[in-house]
Amino acid sequence: MKKVKVGVAGYGVIGQRLADGVFRQQDMELVGVADVAPTLAVRALKEKGMPYDLYLASADRRQAFDDLKIPVSGTLEDMIDKCDVILDSSPGGIGAKNKELYIKHNKKAIFQGGEKNSVADVFFHGYANYEKGLGKDYLKLTSCNTTGLIRSVDCLDRAYGIERVAITIIRRVADPGDYHRGLTNALQIDKAPSHQAVDLMTIMPHVEATGILVHTPITHGHIITVVATGKQKITKEMALAAFEKHPRIRLVSIDEGFMGNASLFRYARDLGNPRGDMYEIALWRDSIVETGDSIMYAINIPQEAVTIPETMDGIRAVMNMQATSEEATAKTNEYLGIGKWKSV
Amino acid sequence: MKKVKVGVAGYGVIGQRLADGVFRQQDMELVGVADVAPTLAVRALKEKGMPYDLYLASADRRQAFDDLKIPVSGTLEDMIDKCDVILDSSPGGIGAKNKELYIKHNKKAIFQGGEKNSVADVFFHGYANYEKGLGKDYLKLTSCNTTGLIRSVDCLDRAYGIERVAITIIRRVADPGDYHRGLTNALQIDKAPSHQAVDLMTIMPHVEATGILVHTPITHGHIITVVATGKQKITKEMALAAFEKHPRIRLVSIDEGFMGNASLFRYARDLGNPRGDMYEIALWRDSIVETGDSIMYAINIPQEAVTIPETMDGIRAVMNMQATSEEATAKTNEYLGIGKWKSV
Amino acid sequence: MKKVKVGVAGYGVIGQRLADGVFRQQDMELVGVADVAPTLAVRALKEKGMPYDLYLASADRRQAFDDLKIPVSGTLEDMIDKCDVILDSSPGGIGAKNKELYIKHNKKAIFQGGEKNSVADVFFHGYANYEKGLGKDYLKLTSCNTTGLIRSVDCLDRAYGIERVAITIIRRVADPGDYHRGLTNALQIDKAPSHQAVDLMTIMPHVEATGILVHTPITHGHIITVVATGKQKITKEMALAAFEKHPRIRLVSIDEGFMGNASLFRYARDLGNPRGDMYEIALWRDSIVETGDSIMYAINIPQEAVTIPETMDGIRAVMNMQATSEEATAKTNEYLGIGKWKSV
Amino acid sequence: MKKVKVGVAGYGVIGQRLADGVFRQQDMELVGVADVAPTLAVRALKEKGMPYDLYLASADRRQAFDDLKIPVSGTLEDMIDKCDVILDSSPGGIGAKNKELYIKHNKKAIFQGGEKNSVADVFFHGYANYEKGLGKDYLKLTSCNTTGLIRSVDCLDRAYGIERVAITIIRRVADPGDYHRGLTNALQIDKAPSHQAVDLMTIMPHVEATGILVHTPITHGHIITVVATGKQKITKEMALAAFEKHPRIRLVSIDEGFMGNASLFRYARDLGNPRGDMYEIALWRDSIVETGDSIMYAINIPQEAVTIPETMDGIRAVMNMQATSEEATAKTNEYLGIGKWKSV
Repeated sequence: MKKVKVGVAGYGVIGQRLADGVFRQQDMELVGVADVAPTLAVRALKEKGMPYDLYLASADRRQAFDDLKIPVSGTLEDMIDKCDVILDSSPGGIGAKNKELYIKHNKKAIFQGGEKNSVADVFFHGYANYEKGLGKDYLKLTSCNTTGLIRSVDCLDRAYGIERVAITIIRRVADPGDYHRGLTNALQIDKAPSHQAVDLMTIMPHVEATGILVHTPITHGHIITVVATGKQKITKEMALAAFEKHPRIRLVSIDEGFMGNASLFRYARDLGNPRGDMYEIALWRDSIVETGDSIMYAINIPQEAVTIPETMDGIRAVMNMQATSEEATAKTNEYLGIGKWKSV
Repeated sequence: MKKVKVGVAGYGVIGQRLADGVFRQQDMELVGVADVAPTLAVRALKEKGMPYDLYLASADRRQAFDDLKIPVSGTLEDMIDKCDVILDSSPGGIGAKNKELYIKHNKKAIFQGGEKNSVADVFFHGYANYEKGLGKDYLKLTSCNTTGLIRSVDCLDRAYGIERVAITIIRRVADPGDYHRGLTNALQIDKAPSHQAVDLMTIMPHVEATGILVHTPITHGHIITVVATGKQKITKEMALAAFEKHPRIRLVSIDEGFMGNASLFRYARDLGNPRGDMYEIALWRDSIVETGDSIMYAINIPQEAVTIPETMDGIRAVMNMQATSEEATAKTNEYLGIGKWKSV
Repeated sequence: MKKVKVGVAGYGVIGQRLADGVFRQQDMELVGVADVAPTLAVRALKEKGMPYDLYLASADRRQAFDDLKIPVSGTLEDMIDKCDVILDSSPGGIGAKNKELYIKHNKKAIFQGGEKNSVADVFFHGYANYEKGLGKDYLKLTSCNTTGLIRSVDCLDRAYGIERVAITIIRRVADPGDYHRGLTNALQIDKAPSHQAVDLMTIMPHVEATGILVHTPITHGHIITVVATGKQKITKEMALAAFEKHPRIRLVSIDEGFMGNASLFRYARDLGNPRGDMYEIALWRDSIVETGDSIMYAINIPQEAVTIPETMDGIRAVMNMQATSEEATAKTNEYLGIGKWKSV
Repeated sequence: MKKVKVGVAGYGVIGQRLADGVFRQQDMELVGVADVAPTLAVRALKEKGMPYDLYLASADRRQAFDDLKIPVSGTLEDMIDKCDVILDSSPGGIGAKNKELYIKHNKKAIFQGGEKNSVADVFFHGYANYEKGLGKDYLKLTSCNTTGLIRSVDCLDRAYGIERVAITIIRRVADPGDYHRGLTNALQIDKAPSHQAVDLMTIMPHVEATGILVHTPITHGHIITVVATGKQKITKEMALAAFEKHPRIRLVSIDEGFMGNASLFRYARDLGNPRGDMYEIALWRDSIVETGDSIMYAINIPQEAVTIPETMDGIRAVMNMQATSEEATAKTNEYLGIGKWKSV
C-alpha cells in the first residue's frame, strides 16, 4: 500500500512531536518539517544528523540556516507539494495564513488547537467524532486539555451516557524550556466558563459542560477534576470498569508512587520514551468519588504529547485510511505503542 | 463590662494573627502570648517594643530568651492562670498536650485546625454552628480552607438550602517565609475525598460533600471551586444576591484587576492591613456559572488570616458573650473592620 | 520651616511606597499622587478613605474614575503646579515624556531606575554621591539592586578603600502580585556584564565592577553575592565592623532563623511595617568569607522598598535641604525609622 | 578482552543513569541493579520488559515485588558476587552500610557524593585526579555541582594555572518528580563556605576555593558563577580557547537560544537523549568577563546525569583499565557519545 505523505509546518514543541509521531506510523511517510528560523529545535535536529528533511517556512531567511551549515531541502511550498496532508503546528494565527498555500496546492491540512475553529471544516477528536472527519480537507484538533478531557468523558458516555460535566482545570502555565511566558508564585483565574468546556460541547453537543480554569506556575502537566453526571447513576466501580478498557487512559494511584503530574513526567522519562513524553492521560483511581448520582475524578494531561495520537487519527480520517474510530485509533495506538502496558 | 481575658499559646503564623485579632476586640483583653523559642516572630515582637507580654511555653528554655534580652513575663501556666480562655495555635499535636494544663487550671480553650477533633467538645464555625459552642469548654476551629468554604456554602444554604457540594481545592503548599515545607514545579494530589469536604459535613450534617485536593507550589492563598446543588435551582443572580450580603465574603472580578490569589495578597498589603492580611475570602463574580440545577463558583482563601474572625466568634461563644451567631459575628466584624468596605 | 512639597507621578509598586515615604518625612508635604487608571492600587487608596489626593495622569480617562466614585483632585499638571519636586515612578519611558511637563512648569524631578540615564543631570545614590545632586533639577535614582549593592560597597570603600567588585545577582523575577511578567521553573541568564555592575561604576568611578545576573522564579527579594577587592586586605572582622555601623544594612544570620529572602519578607510583615516592607538590605554574617585578599558576602535586596530612602535623600539634595550625605541620610533615616533596631 | 562486570546498588535518579551509562560502555557488562522496593523506577523497568536484571536490596521485602509480578534475580549479595565493582547510589548513609557487604565479598565499590569522604580511599574526579584512583578499592565521586565545577576549573588550571576560585552556586533544590523535598517562592542561603568549594580543594589541593550557595525553587540544573584567578592574567579569549577543547564542556550562547538551565533541559530532550539527559556541563560564552586579572564565567550543571561519565572513569581507574585520565576519559566519552557534537 502506498504510504500517506505527511509534512509538518512549525517545528516547535508540538511540531517536533507530530514529526516523531508520523515517523512511527508504518502506513505514513514523513516528508519533512518546516520552520522559519534556526531555533534550538532545529539545531537539535542538525546535531542528531538530520533524520528528517528541513524546509524553509520563510524563503528570505535562508542565510541564517546557511551560516550554521544546517541543510535545507527547499521552501515550505516545496514541502507542501510533496505531501498528501500537512500538519500545521505553527504559532496561533500563522496556520490560517498558511492555509492559503494549502488551498493553492490543493492539499489537506490539520491544524492544532491554537487556530480559530473557522480555519477548519471540522473540529476533531479521534474518539468522539472521528467519522465527521472522514475525507474532509481541513480539520482542527482539540487543544491539549480538551483532547484529554474528552477521552475520559467520551469513555463514560459510550459506556453509560453522560448528560453534564463541570470541570476545574488546574493548568500548567508553560512548557519546560519556555521563556516567553510564565507565572511566578501566583494562581491566575480565567473568566468562566473555560473554553475547554465550550469546546467539549462543540465536539459532544449532547453534553452540557461548564467549568473554571486556574493557571498554576508549573510545567509538567495539567490536572483536571471532572464532575460527570450520567443518564444513570455511575458508581466508582462502573467508572473504573470503563476507564480500564481505554487504551489512551492510564489508571494510576498515589500508593504506587504517582503523587502528581511530576511523577508522571519522571515516569515517562524513566520509561525511555522519546523526549520523555507520554501519550496517555493518567487518571487517579484514588481520586474517584461519588457525589449524588454524579461521579468525580481527576486526570493528568501531558500537554506536550497528548494531542499527537488524535492528530494521527485525524490523518487517517481525512485520507479515509480507516472507516471507523475503532479501526483508526487501533492503528495509531499500535504504531505509537499505546496501551501495550495494559497487558504487561 | 469586664473584658474577657485571652492568651495565645503558640506564636507562629496563626498565633501572631490571633493575638492581633484579640487586641482589636474592645471587649477582650490580650493577656499575652507564649512560645517555646526565640523564633523570628518573637524577635519581631521584641523589635517592636513588646506590645504584648511574652510567656515561656517551656520553662527550661529561658536562657535562650535571656541571652537575647527578650523580656519574659512568666511561664505558660502563669499565662493560663490569668486568662479566661486560651487560644491554642501550637503545632499539631501539642495542643492536645497543652489541654492537660487547661484542665488543670480549669480554663476554656479553643484549638486550631491542626488538632484532632477529639481534643474538643465541638468542631466550630462562627456562622454555621455558633450556637453549639455556647458555654462549651473546648472548641476546635475548622481549618483555613474549611472555614472559608463553609462561609460560602452556609451563605447559600441559609438563602436557598444546599443539598450537596463537590469541591476542588487548589491548595497553596506553604506560607510566605516557610522553609520547612515546600513543593517545586509539581502538582500533588491527595486521596479523595479531601478532609475539608468531610469536615464540612461534620459542621453542616445536612449537606453531602466530597472533593479533590491538589497542592500547588505557591504561597498566597488557596483557590477552591465549588459545585453546589441546592434544594431549588440557584441561578447566578440568586447566588450573587446572597454572597453580596455576607460581610466576610468580598466579591471581586477579573476586570477590576483581581487576576488571582496574588492580586488579593497585593491588595491587602496596599490597603495597609497589618501584616498585609485579609480576613475576607474573595469570590470571583466572573467565575460563577450554572450547571444543570447547580451553581459553580471559585473562592480565594487567605490562609494566614481567614480563621481569625471565626476564632474571635469562638471566644464569644464559649464565654456566652453573645447568644446568637448574628450578634457575635457582628461584634467580631465591627472590631476587625470587616465588611466596612462594602459600604465604601 | 516651610515644608518641601512633593508629588508622585505613577502610583504603582514603587509610587505607592514613595508616597508613604514622603508622608513620613516631617519636613516634606505630600501634595498627592497621579495615575492613569483606577488600578488596584488606586482602588485600595479609595477603600482606605483617600489619605492622599489623587490626580489624573491622563485627563481624558476621567470617566473611569467617576464611574467608581473615586475622587479626583485635578490633572497631573495641576499636581505639578503645587509641587516643588516630583517623584516620577511611571513605567519606563513615560518619565522621559513627563519631563516635558516638569520643564514647562519649571519643577524639579527625580526619576526611578527604569528611565534612561540621559533623562537626568545626575545618576544618584544617597550615600555614594549625594553631593553631586545638590541643587540639581533632575536626578535619576539607581535601580533596586544597584541601590542596595552600592550601600554595601560604598560602606567598605569608605572604611578601607575598594578597587574592584565581581557580583552575582540572583534576581527575583517579579513582585508579589505581578501577572504581567513571570518565569516558571527556570533560571534565566543575562549577557554579562550585568547593568548593575556598569551602573555601580557610573556612581563610583574609581571602582572596577563586573558581574553576572541570573533571574529566578521567586518574588521576595534579590540576593547578590559580592567579591570585593580592597586596597588592603579586608578580613571578615573588618568587613563586619564596617557593615555594623551602616543604618541601612541589617546584619542577620541563618542561626537566628533568617534562612533566605522569604524569611526577611516574613519578618518585615511581622514587624508590622506598612505593606510588609523593609527599607534595609540584609547582609548575612555567616556568608562572609575571605578569598585571597578579597572579601565575599551575600546581601538581600527588598526590591519593592529599597530605593525609597535614597529617593528621600534625593529630594534633600535637589532642594538643598542638607549639605552633606551624612546629614541628609540621618534625617531620612530618622523619619523612616531606619536603624532604630540597631539599638534595640 | 573480558568485560568488567558492574552492578548498581540503589536504582533511583542517579542509579538508573549509572546503569544506562554502564550499559553503553562496550568494555563493561551490566550485571544488574538492586533496590529495596518497587518504586516508580522499578515499575518503569518492568514496563520496559526488564532490560536489566533486578536484585533485592532487602531480602525480606520480596513479597512486594512478587505481588506486582516484577521478576527478581536474587539478593543484593547475589549481585555483588557476580560483579567486579559495584556502583553504590543508595541514599546517603546506606552506602557506608553496604560497604560491609563489599568488604565481605572482597569487591571494589564506587560511592556517590552523598556518602562521607571516609567511606572511600580516594575522593575522585575523572579529569582532576584520575591517577589517584588507579587500582584502589573504594572511591567516592564528587557531587554533581563539584563534578561540573572541577571540569571547568581543572580545564583552566591545566592550560594556565589556577590559584584561587570564588564561586556562587545557584542550586536547583529538587529533581523533576521529587516530592520528598522542595522549596516554594524562596531563596535559601547556606552557611559559607559551601561544601563544593571545600571539596574542590580536596581534589585540587593547590587551589584556594571558597563560595556561597543559594538554593532556588527550580528543578532543571544548577548554575554556578566562578571567579577564577590564574597564575597569569587569563583573558576571555584564553578562557574560551581552553573551554572549547574540553569534550565535557558545551559552549553555548544566549543568542543561540540558550536562555538558561531550562533551555538546556529542553535541548537534551529534543536531542532524543535517553531520559532527556545531558552529560556535558554548559558554559555561556556571553557570560565570560574579565575582572582584574581574574576571569568570571557561568556554567550549567545538569544534576541528574553529570556525574555519570566521571563514575565510568572511576570504574576504569579502580580496574586499571586505562593508565591515564586522557585514555580513560576518551573511552568513556566515546561510548557515551560525549563531544561528538563539537565536530558536527
